[in-house]
Amino acid sequence: MSEPNASTTSGATLELSRFAATARLDDLPDAVRHEGVRAIVNWVGCVLGGSAHEAVGKAQDILGPYAAPEEATVLGSGRRVNMMYAALFNSMSASACVFDDTHLGTVLHPTSPVGAAALAVAEHRRSRGADFLLAVILGDEIACRVANMVAAPPAKSHLGLFMTGIAGGVGAAVAAGRLMALNEQQMAWAIGIAASQASGLRVMHGTHTTPLMPGHAAQTGVMAAILAAGNFTSAERSLEAPRGLADVFAAPANIDIATDRLGRHFELLSLTYKPYPCGIVAHPLIDACLAMACEHDIAPDAIDRLEATVNPVAIELTGIRHPRDYMQSHNSLYHWAAAALVHRAAGLREEADACVHDPRMRAFREKITATADAKMAPDACRARLLLRDGRVFETAIAHCSGSRDRPMTDAELDIKFRGQAGTVLSERDADELLALCRGLSRLDSMTTFMDAAVQSSGRNPYTSHRAASAT
Amino acid sequence: MSEPNASTTSGATLELSRFAATARLDDLPDAVRHEGVRAIVNWVGCVLGGSAHEAVGKAQDILGPYAAPEEATVLGSGRRVNMMYAALFNSMSASACVFDDTHLGTVLHPTSPVGAAALAVAEHRRSRGADFLLAVILGDEIACRVANMVAAPPAKSHLGLFMTGIAGGVGAAVAAGRLMALNEQQMAWAIGIAASQASGLRVMHGTHTTPLMPGHAAQTGVMAAILAAGNFTSAERSLEAPRGLADVFAAPANIDIATDRLGRHFELLSLTYKPYPCGIVAHPLIDACLAMACEHDIAPDAIDRLEATVNPVAIELTGIRHPRDYMQSHNSLYHWAAAALVHRAAGLREEADACVHDPRMRAFREKITATADAKMAPDACRARLLLRDGRVFETAIAHCSGSRDRPMTDAELDIKFRGQAGTVLSERDADELLALCRGLSRLDSMTTFMDAAVQSSGRNPYTSHRAASAT
Repeated sequence: MSEPNASTTSGATLELSRFAATARLDDLPDAVRHEGVRAIVNWVGCVLGGSAHEAVGKAQDILGPYAAPEEATVLGSGRRVNMMYAALFNSMSASACVFDDTHLGTVLHPTSPVGAAALAVAEHRRSRGADFLLAVILGDEIACRVANMVAAPPAKSHLGLFMTGIAGGVGAAVAAGRLMALNEQQMAWAIGIAASQASGLRVMHGTHTTPLMPGHAAQTGVMAAILAAGNFTSAERSLEAPRGLADVFAAPANIDIATDRLGRHFELLSLTYKPYPCGIVAHPLIDACLAMACEHDIAPDAIDRLEATVNPVAIELTGIRHPRDYMQSHNSLYHWAAAALVHRAAGLREEADACVHDPRMRAFREKITATADAKMAPDACRARLLLRDGRVFETAIAHCSGSRDRPMTDAELDIKFRGQAGTVLSERDADELLALCRGLSRLDSMTTFMDAAVQSSGRNPYTSHRAASAT
Repeated sequence: MSEPNASTTSGATLELSRFAATARLDDLPDAVRHEGVRAIVNWVGCVLGGSAHEAVGKAQDILGPYAAPEEATVLGSGRRVNMMYAALFNSMSASACVFDDTHLGTVLHPTSPVGAAALAVAEHRRSRGADFLLAVILGDEIACRVANMVAAPPAKSHLGLFMTGIAGGVGAAVAAGRLMALNEQQMAWAIGIAASQASGLRVMHGTHTTPLMPGHAAQTGVMAAILAAGNFTSAERSLEAPRGLADVFAAPANIDIATDRLGRHFELLSLTYKPYPCGIVAHPLIDACLAMACEHDIAPDAIDRLEATVNPVAIELTGIRHPRDYMQSHNSLYHWAAAALVHRAAGLREEADACVHDPRMRAFREKITATADAKMAPDACRARLLLRDGRVFETAIAHCSGSRDRPMTDAELDIKFRGQAGTVLSERDADELLALCRGLSRLDSMTTFMDAAVQSSGRNPYTSHRAASAT
């Protein structure tokens, strides 16, 4: 506090605020606009596919009485609530199946809160599709940059911090604030308000509170923008100043990276999308198991054991051998490796309680050993499959599916979207919504988008998504 | 995550939950019940005295449209909102003038969020006064214990963390949860949900967001209890487990202190109350200046300069020489020392913009040098006053007023209460409310309390509290 009255016309927060308030969609590189659309396609699919998750239904039932006035829509249930609650519930849906996008360097999942905040405000204000797209791009970009301040070397943050809770609210505030046309000063306040509520603990994994954390970030972001629009002030150097977000959550912080090549380099371009609904650190081993089981047509009963070598974080974050239920399955490397070997699949069906509790799966999970190797890259693994008849198969994954070096293609994302949307929408309706996503920059009003997204609402009241997906 | 399915029947979170769900007021020592009443007297005064603060008014104006249904009352404005928003706004009022209580070892201000969460639920449920008192005692006690996990040696937390945001939400959840009669399991979930939103950055000091942080803790606490009552799950070892609250916010954490002598030793007994509306670290120097100015009847114009020696944290947290406005005055040691010398007073009047912007005060703040001395205790200081005529006065404060070793008496707290309540209530009404506070354990219904607290609501619409207090 030695220079508390120093000029506040510069610094990372204000530079990001200026960018957020003034960037134009037409000035962005084609690749960035395209990636923004991909992020939205993936996000909308995740919202629909997760909308019947138990935690989302419970949250709506319990908090619904507090969610007036009707301004925006919860996808899946079709419930009308205020913008803050729409952001909360839709972000919860987006995260519920742990199927949303990832900024690999920081393990941030930006679009869950950013997309939810943007959609709630865009629906309420009947924004143009291009404005919604721009808001998501700016929110995602700034969320990734804030996460970099905390988690990109030499910054070092605590592994227990849930990064989407730490940086996601700032991104959500940016997206909501842009759609509300905040000026630079107000944008800085919105960022600061969101930063003041940055939170999230990984100990929550496997409980209803897991999706509540990105949901809180989304809700906070909308609230921050609403408050800032009313000139409710906060710190103007909330991200970079001593006792600000980066200083508190990283030791040391990486201040410079927040604005490095801003407007020319885009962190958004490094977003990845998941082929499997579980912790991304488990994905290389799923790839390896699917490859071996399919390539050699190995019957599950022929398998004696699996020996895997993985990055240490895979065991740190997905080291549960026998998940208690579908929520804990997201953090069980053993479950997903077993699913890949037993069912040759790793989708929502394998996430369901029926699969988790299957005695055969339980027995199979015992056949797996996973060894941590710090030299193994996070998107790589080695696996040895030992059969009862003495045969041994080995495989190595250099870059797993959905990694930066092996990204999901547009066509693969479309398939993923249809699978998720199909839990709520008819095939035809899902295709219509997908086309609207892909053509967002030409869409006159987000009202059209919402009509398509909720046309079948009520068809799938949020009972047990697990039961539904397991059938 | 190596033992994720380990027994969850023990551990700090569950032990605290059990205590929170089952402790009985009659079983608590007299001193604890008495201190609970003192905390409430101080808190109610702070809420009333801060209820016209600009940040509180703005927040109500901006967020009011989202605050239905009418379940509880905002003191001062008389606005009827839902329990979560009542908790938010009343906690903001309690903190706005930086006049609320302090757990010195951790610089936690527990009752702001705890009292607000408890009052909102108690009003809505028409609880007995004894139940409200018990809820505040339990919430404060557990908030202090959680803060100790993060900040009591050997635990070491970042000075930029706003401890009321980190531990206050857990206390608020406990208070709200007890009044909702949560069972032990639900109480643990409520604690976990609140822990997942633990947040707060000291960079916000001097902005509207400063009181928003305890307000968020209060709101989160009520929400956590509401969700947990609906069996919305969270981690059951959220406080003590790896990647839980203490692990993430302290390095290392002090796990054992959370439950040390639980039910026999009470951290609540170490709460202190402020005689001056500013950062507590500035209080020793205010004491010193008031003592010298009054004892020797020194005219301000006779003073050449003041040389102070203070604990380093005093400069760290209140090192602003010239505050921008009343909000920043809370963090200016120089302003308050000058006020004590020029006005021989350090109350709400000296916090007002009129005093902050007074050219004479500005000139006087330049006459002060403050030197950090790590050997100086936080509640102590030395001061040398050098007069123009060559005379020099020196004084040393061993324990400032309101410190643990020199606590405010009940009579002093009553005077403080009347001064704050007088900004909203008539003298007679304030006395009636004070009597109800002091007799809480015998009060049949909190409805009686609320009637007394809001009887003059509307008299003082939240315009400029600063202008009012400066007259």
